[in-house]
Amino acid sequence: MTIDLNSDLGEGFGRWRLGDDEALLSIVTSANVACGFHAGDPTIMRTVCELAAARGVAIGAQVGYRDLGGFGRRFIDVPPEELSDDIVYQLGSLDAFARLAGTRVRYVKPHGALYNAIVHHEEQAAAVVAAVRAYDRALPVLGLPGSAWLRRAESAGLATVTEGFADRAYTPRGTLVPRGTPGAVLHDPEEVAERCLRMARGEPIEAVDGTPLIVRAESICVHGDSPGAVAMARRVSESLKAGGIELSSFAREAA
Amino acid sequence: MTIDLNSDLGEGFGRWRLGDDEALLSIVTSANVACGFHAGDPTIMRTVCELAAARGVAIGAQVGYRDLGGFGRRFIDVPPEELSDDIVYQLGSLDAFARLAGTRVRYVKPHGALYNAIVHHEEQAAAVVAAVRAYDRALPVLGLPGSAWLRRAESAGLATVTEGFADRAYTPRGTLVPRGTPGAVLHDPEEVAERCLRMARGEPIEAVDGTPLIVRAESICVHGDSPGAVAMARRVSESLKAGGIELSSFAREAA
Amino acid sequence: MTIDLNSDLGEGFGRWRLGDDEALLSIVTSANVACGFHAGDPTIMRTVCELAAARGVAIGAQVGYRDLGGFGRRFIDVPPEELSDDIVYQLGSLDAFARLAGTRVRYVKPHGALYNAIVHHEEQAAAVVAAVRAYDRALPVLGLPGSAWLRRAESAGLATVTEGFADRAYTPRGTLVPRGTPGAVLHDPEEVAERCLRMARGEPIEAVDGTPLIVRAESICVHGDSPGAVAMARRVSESLKAGGIELSSFAREAA
Amino acid sequence: MTIDLNSDLGEGFGRWRLGDDEALLSIVTSANVACGFHAGDPTIMRTVCELAAARGVAIGAQVGYRDLGGFGRRFIDVPPEELSDDIVYQLGSLDAFARLAGTRVRYVKPHGALYNAIVHHEEQAAAVVAAVRAYDRALPVLGLPGSAWLRRAESAGLATVTEGFADRAYTPRGTLVPRGTPGAVLHDPEEVAERCLRMARGEPIEAVDGTPLIVRAESICVHGDSPGAVAMARRVSESLKAGGIELSSFAREAA
Repeated sequence: MTIDLNSDLGEGFGRWRLGDDEALLSIVTSANVACGFHAGDPTIMRTVCELAAARGVAIGAQVGYRDLGGFGRRFIDVPPEELSDDIVYQLGSLDAFARLAGTRVRYVKPHGALYNAIVHHEEQAAAVVAAVRAYDRALPVLGLPGSAWLRRAESAGLATVTEGFADRAYTPRGTLVPRGTPGAVLHDPEEVAERCLRMARGEPIEAVDGTPLIVRAESICVHGDSPGAVAMARRVSESLKAGGIELSSFAREAA
Repeated sequence: MTIDLNSDLGEGFGRWRLGDDEALLSIVTSANVACGFHAGDPTIMRTVCELAAARGVAIGAQVGYRDLGGFGRRFIDVPPEELSDDIVYQLGSLDAFARLAGTRVRYVKPHGALYNAIVHHEEQAAAVVAAVRAYDRALPVLGLPGSAWLRRAESAGLATVTEGFADRAYTPRGTLVPRGTPGAVLHDPEEVAERCLRMARGEPIEAVDGTPLIVRAESICVHGDSPGAVAMARRVSESLKAGGIELSSFAREAA
Repeated sequence: MTIDLNSDLGEGFGRWRLGDDEALLSIVTSANVACGFHAGDPTIMRTVCELAAARGVAIGAQVGYRDLGGFGRRFIDVPPEELSDDIVYQLGSLDAFARLAGTRVRYVKPHGALYNAIVHHEEQAAAVVAAVRAYDRALPVLGLPGSAWLRRAESAGLATVTEGFADRAYTPRGTLVPRGTPGAVLHDPEEVAERCLRMARGEPIEAVDGTPLIVRAESICVHGDSPGAVAMARRVSESLKAGGIELSSFAREAA
Repeated sequence: MTIDLNSDLGEGFGRWRLGDDEALLSIVTSANVACGFHAGDPTIMRTVCELAAARGVAIGAQVGYRDLGGFGRRFIDVPPEELSDDIVYQLGSLDAFARLAGTRVRYVKPHGALYNAIVHHEEQAAAVVAAVRAYDRALPVLGLPGSAWLRRAESAGLATVTEGFADRAYTPRGTLVPRGTPGAVLHDPEEVAERCLRMARGEPIEAVDGTPLIVRAESICVHGDSPGAVAMARRVSESLKAGGIELSSFAREAA
């Protein structure tokens, strides 16, 4: 039994940093690297790619809206064709640094408001799928089970990978309880680690109302933007290994 | 006898446009495409790459400082390592669009203040050379004969291509008369076309003081940012062909 | 009988220009000056303010989303408090140049997607109103009759000014026929000039289906982003004057 | 005997933060607030202005080059007239937030590479002086004794305020030992506090070679971008007060 752990990395810009990239790279198996549109700059991208490559962590393109001021967390009504071009641009730039580090971009995970939008925004979902497909149809895409994004990616012949969230509460229907709702975010590392183990084993977790819920997750998303978050990510990793789950990226190097 | 004609293209951003890309693509053999740092956005880059590929015009990366507000015309004292990362980023993003259009980035020509800086700024010249070499050591680089840029590129094993300017006056030492100096820019299409023909044939032109001067130019740079500029570029092209010079990019498709 | 003619100005950025600012400033009575978020840069803002002040044209703040790449034409889901701060920032910066030119910002007209959003988006409408009120409660605001923007501005004690569009078709209910719909944009200068004269006199124009419609318009918006647009704006101005309508800004200098 | 303590504040952008603004605002008497060109965004600017106003800390405009990616630490060869416009824009935007907080911008202190450039770059120094003078000739300017910036400001009739650096070593000639040189930055809070007390009293400190040196400093610059920096700033403040020096901004509210 194996599962992937993914996390957002390289989310600084210029003088600014966010999260502890080095700590996370010793924990996760997949690194979602920001590509300069919502965060990330060329020097940060190179550095993270070098570190990830050195540790055998798979590099994914964390593509987002062009929105440094809003950190990609604001929905932007970008026309689909332009959105598609924006994604190709980001893929190409990150792939350059991945190649220089001796590897390649291995998957795509949209960021923030774009991630949320393409759960249901069909035109934008189609635009991101079209961009990935045009760039490299061998790239798997990571996202929420049931999203327009994964559904359209699958129809387009892309490999899809489902994602669960370590520290988020779920509704009985398997969607995330929106941030801001009481109980939406879980804070107890033991509880979070236990839930992740259940997800990895295909066992039900408890939805926010107590209903048993099976979350299809081939990858689990952990965070690293606070000391507590890094500690929780580490606890999740340890718990999975102790439970007999192998941590391994879904995105293997090409033969 | 052959020569290359190059021109800057794709220098709009968002709603803004500059120059007549379509007209120039019917004239030149090499297109210096802006990569989003001083001009250019993903949609413009895709469009220009598609047009260039359709017409068999070689695509070059017109890399620049990160300076939309100044159009890349202001020297910026970027630390060399960061400059190198900025160049790799731009190369990767443009190459993505070139690949989608069925071709590749075929050469590199820095833009504006960066072009001028690396004539003599050794650290920045070395940084751009290092970026090109790391990205793809088969990429030729285009620049001013005698510049630190070409000298260092050659030492690093890169192919170098010398460039002459159709509408600029030269000093007796072969450098450009600075813009702003009276007579620095030539406006008569016939005179310009005649000079280009001489350059292509390896014959001397007149320097600004009347001294005969041989300009080593494997490529001639023409402009397209005004109706007059496009007409002059067309005149240069016609004159070269009428004089028995074949127009052909130095940057051929790989076999 | 008087009416105001307004137009968007200063919509270039850096090396790029859009429209013929000088021509328009000889036609309109109110200049909506871009403030650097969707277009406009400090040098353009200063230049337009100087020209407008010299010609007695009232300066209005054409505030927009932070979106140079999309020219402010993409809806962005900016949290209201941040949107409010963005508006204050733009007002302050433009007012600095207006003061240096010997005048002041005299009114506010949102741009593009923000203009369209606050017709109905109550939170963003409230945010822009709050910003204007906090900055200077004596500033009139310009907008679409019936919009949330004007309704909320009025409730907040701001002076409101209704706007008609010279070259746009109207539905029988008085809303604009969306761009892209056949017939949405009028191209015949004579027809447009005739409609403007009717608007100015309070007479009905024909809606898109032929229904007579009275458009409440204390100001008429004309465009200047093409030679044809400038000619049309000039024709509108001449027609109004010939019809006995005085052209005069609603936004008079303080005593 | 009085002296001013100044520090850089509001140097985040969007999701990113730098330094502990709240802690510093309980220590310093003057806040150099970033204006959005090298750091700072509208929401941060409003927040810092509100906090500073509430605590009676004077607000200064920390103007810089347009360079978010380089944090304003890279010299940019901006043409003087455009630089002047950039400064006016920044002054106007910050002043809007200062007014909303019930106060005004009280002084100007350039940031980073601009600060360093105008020690000797006469054209850029003149451009910044011209901008301040045009915006409000009652605004004092803060800078290095002997700089072109202060000299030209004085000639232009602006009030000038000299600045000393708490944690920097000085050459015998009174200039700063460049960062990167061994011993350039002092780390011992006691030593730093003692030096500041001497500066405030007009007593000599030791230059890097042991020479006694009198530093003319009407304001002392402290930093806050690390927990150690905040502690050092607090120690400086306590030491000055214990030594009988009153901490007070040079930039008093208008009567």
